[in-house]
Amino acid sequence: MLLCDIGNTSYHFFDGVRAYKKPVNSFVPEDVTEDVHYICVNVALEQRLQELPNWIDLEPKIERTNYYETMGIDRIMACEAVLDGVIVDAGSAVTVDVMRNGCYEGGFIYPGKEAFMRSFASISPALAYDFDTSLKVDSLPKSTSHALSYGFLAPLLKEITSYDLDIILTGGDAHLLKEFLPEAKEDALLLFKGMQKVLGGAA
Amino acid sequence: MLLCDIGNTSYHFFDGVRAYKKPVNSFVPEDVTEDVHYICVNVALEQRLQELPNWIDLEPKIERTNYYETMGIDRIMACEAVLDGVIVDAGSAVTVDVMRNGCYEGGFIYPGKEAFMRSFASISPALAYDFDTSLKVDSLPKSTSHALSYGFLAPLLKEITSYDLDIILTGGDAHLLKEFLPEAKEDALLLFKGMQKVLGGAA
Repeated sequence: MLLCDIGNTSYHFFDGVRAYKKPVNSFVPEDVTEDVHYICVNVALEQRLQELPNWIDLEPKIERTNYYETMGIDRIMACEAVLDGVIVDAGSAVTVDVMRNGCYEGGFIYPGKEAFMRSFASISPALAYDFDTSLKVDSLPKSTSHALSYGFLAPLLKEITSYDLDIILTGGDAHLLKEFLPEAKEDALLLFKGMQKVLGGAA
Repeated sequence: MLLCDIGNTSYHFFDGVRAYKKPVNSFVPEDVTEDVHYICVNVALEQRLQELPNWIDLEPKIERTNYYETMGIDRIMACEAVLDGVIVDAGSAVTVDVMRNGCYEGGFIYPGKEAFMRSFASISPALAYDFDTSLKVDSLPKSTSHALSYGFLAPLLKEITSYDLDIILTGGDAHLLKEFLPEAKEDALLLFKGMQKVLGGAA
């Protein structure tokens, strides 16, 4: 049995041991013969997958009223894996969700690192910089490159650490946040753990 | 005598009583006969203004080594008006600068409200929302519109209030921040006060 988290650019599989990705525009889901339990935020693929009997959508198994109507199923699955904690999924967007005693308290969305830096460039060419990995957040910046990178990171860190809960990082930029949140846990498989829990397996 | 702060879209004048704006693309600086003390971040206008004897650039009067090399002259002038405090200039970008005992401690840049919301739309059409003015920041959101608006505002507020200093708000979105920071001071003329101080007048 495979688990699969389908986004706009890739199928992210987990076979119980190994996680791997396949590109959305070349991978053929009809070629998979074993059962795949999946979640999908890619609207263009939904219909096609619904027609494949061995591709089983996990979304109907979720009690959506525990969350909110338009919340992404990927965020929900990550939350399902956590009883108490702040779940930070740092990708093209950064989603931050809070679980307390197994209940969803709410969450917010922040632009991902790339989108954040692009938004500066959209304001003025003088603000067109890449994220500066030499940034320190323990003192206020005195250069444009640090001022912009601090703008992305420091307010987000202050918000994330304000809930006084364990922090669980996942997503492509989890490692970046981990550098500034040494006490946080990094878990690349968090979403799959949520899916396993929803399926009745171990979390 | 006039003071003038020139940006990319407008000349912002202050005549000692009244502040008013003129559009960059139609206003003719040669038509002004009285002395104008100005600062200018509009690269396209710099040369033209330098050639007008009654337009006097205030930038050479600033000790830039107190700040940093690429820091905007508009940010510097606002800082010059403040001995102790967090200066938040909320416009197309939000600049946040800290002064303590008349010394510049550093600062950071954050996308303005419009740029921030545009950056969500650039990530996914599902995140294309305007800022939701019904937002409350005392509890975590449970809707997409609030999740995005909270993403813009709450981390920024946590950062701004973390320095334990008076907060002075200026710029076009000062009123928005003031709603969430009732203890902050709003000062639409802050930058002109800095210019007056640099000129040796009252701050």
